[in-house]
Amino acid sequence: MSGASTTQAMPSAQASELIRGGQARSEAVLEALLSPAGAVSDRLEEAMRYSVLGGGKRLRPVLLYAAGRALGGDEDEAGRAALDATAAALELVHAYSLVHDDLPAMDDDDLRRGQPTVHRAFDEATAILAGDALLSLAFEVIADTAHARTPALIRTLAEASGRRGMVAGQALDLEAVGQFREVEALSRMHAYKTGALIRSAVRLGGLVAVEESDSRLEALERYASAIGLAFQIQDDILDVTGDTATLGKTAGADAARDKPTYPSLLGLEGARTRAGQLLDEALDALAPLGEAAEPLAVLARYMIERDH
Amino acid sequence: MSGASTTQAMPSAQASELIRGGQARSEAVLEALLSPAGAVSDRLEEAMRYSVLGGGKRLRPVLLYAAGRALGGDEDEAGRAALDATAAALELVHAYSLVHDDLPAMDDDDLRRGQPTVHRAFDEATAILAGDALLSLAFEVIADTAHARTPALIRTLAEASGRRGMVAGQALDLEAVGQFREVEALSRMHAYKTGALIRSAVRLGGLVAVEESDSRLEALERYASAIGLAFQIQDDILDVTGDTATLGKTAGADAARDKPTYPSLLGLEGARTRAGQLLDEALDALAPLGEAAEPLAVLARYMIERDH
Repeated sequence: MSGASTTQAMPSAQASELIRGGQARSEAVLEALLSPAGAVSDRLEEAMRYSVLGGGKRLRPVLLYAAGRALGGDEDEAGRAALDATAAALELVHAYSLVHDDLPAMDDDDLRRGQPTVHRAFDEATAILAGDALLSLAFEVIADTAHARTPALIRTLAEASGRRGMVAGQALDLEAVGQFREVEALSRMHAYKTGALIRSAVRLGGLVAVEESDSRLEALERYASAIGLAFQIQDDILDVTGDTATLGKTAGADAARDKPTYPSLLGLEGARTRAGQLLDEALDALAPLGEAAEPLAVLARYMIERDH
Repeated sequence: MSGASTTQAMPSAQASELIRGGQARSEAVLEALLSPAGAVSDRLEEAMRYSVLGGGKRLRPVLLYAAGRALGGDEDEAGRAALDATAAALELVHAYSLVHDDLPAMDDDDLRRGQPTVHRAFDEATAILAGDALLSLAFEVIADTAHARTPALIRTLAEASGRRGMVAGQALDLEAVGQFREVEALSRMHAYKTGALIRSAVRLGGLVAVEESDSRLEALERYASAIGLAFQIQDDILDVTGDTATLGKTAGADAARDKPTYPSLLGLEGARTRAGQLLDEALDALAPLGEAAEPLAVLARYMIERDH
């Protein structure tokens, strides 16, 4: 795409700026949303804040803001407010899914971002309830936003979160421990488990800017499908090559559980090659969007070059 | 209110007809929504159907339809579709909350409606995920409905479900096992835990028919607050006086856990008196709505006369 050569000269500085900007903007919205004023159960809301405000890359909000700007969604106050609301909602859904995934009956994880998981820091019941409340809050936040496409924004997030989206992927993952032997089946699971929310991040940003029938949303969809899978492959690679301190979670955890991963099915080099092909697909998909999509290209490169 | 004397002559037949009608209507919508066609994870969707379609009184949909009709929401196709969608959504939220409440880390119940609870019939992880997916589906169903007040409908349900609604009540309940010694604190917990969803049932029905600023919604709110609490008092009374077969859940379970109840704080007769006072309050609140609210009066009487 045009402008790619300029970017390649300094991807890291551009990516850092984009990420810092999106992080700061979504962090401020989340802080305000999770203000303890008016809490009914202090313990519940403390657990919600612990779940959401304890760091995190805010990758989904960063992608959402970049997609929204690429189609002009950031140009008026209503658009900016809708981008803020959907970015926060998406991060609330992501946070709830981590809290429930970490539970003893699910992945039984003790550490998340280098800190005790919510059921460790509080208790299991509070972790279940905090996750539940974060999910309801996500939809409340979007419903509170006066935007012409509020129902479509909510439908997009709900579909991506539920039985034919993220939760379906978690169910496939649980069913498959030690069973996937084909890379296609592994990719299908990830397309739901992590892919659905990443695709919805990009689509939500686009939907703030344009009608559902706009063909640019299809270009964004192709981009998002490719980076969603590339992101997961890189996660698997880091589980093999990273260390616990840098990752903020236990390195080698997948292998220890005999969980199938891209490196275990394709080899480390094979996995890296596949991630590179997906990056090319993502950049190709952006071509029709022109210069305005350059930040999305920068983020795609970041996602497969990151070390945590 | 006008018409009350007619009703008192045959409350049971009228209530039965209202309940059967609302049950059949919401059951059909839920069956269609939870069709297994297109499932990504068969096990997940089987657990969702088991959670929702395994019986249940459908009291919240019945109230929602009655409130909607009382304000004329049933008179056109768009209104009927919105009533169906919100009734189904409400029941999905109610079902998810029961699945999560029954989990070992929460109430640890083995029986629900005379059948094994979801984590017993499937497993804990599937129960957590099925609950999560039901909650997302609730918002998806409303977002899919083309109605002028779709965002307000979603906001109403989300607020009632979350950190300042039902989930807050569950958190207060968990914190308080064996600690409530004041009937005010017990009532406050119930106003969130079961009351929020019952109030939202009545409000959602009303909102399908009229603008948010319509004063008739305030009358409905007073009605719903009173019957929500009366419903809970009757639940507590039945836990003392009912038997396991009729209730479909373990009788005496609250007392066995040393959980505070209205009968334990007010005595059985005191609890019955309080329920009667709340019924009067509910009927008074309906007065400004005239004859069209008669079904809501019938349902209020049913809720404190039921034996299961």
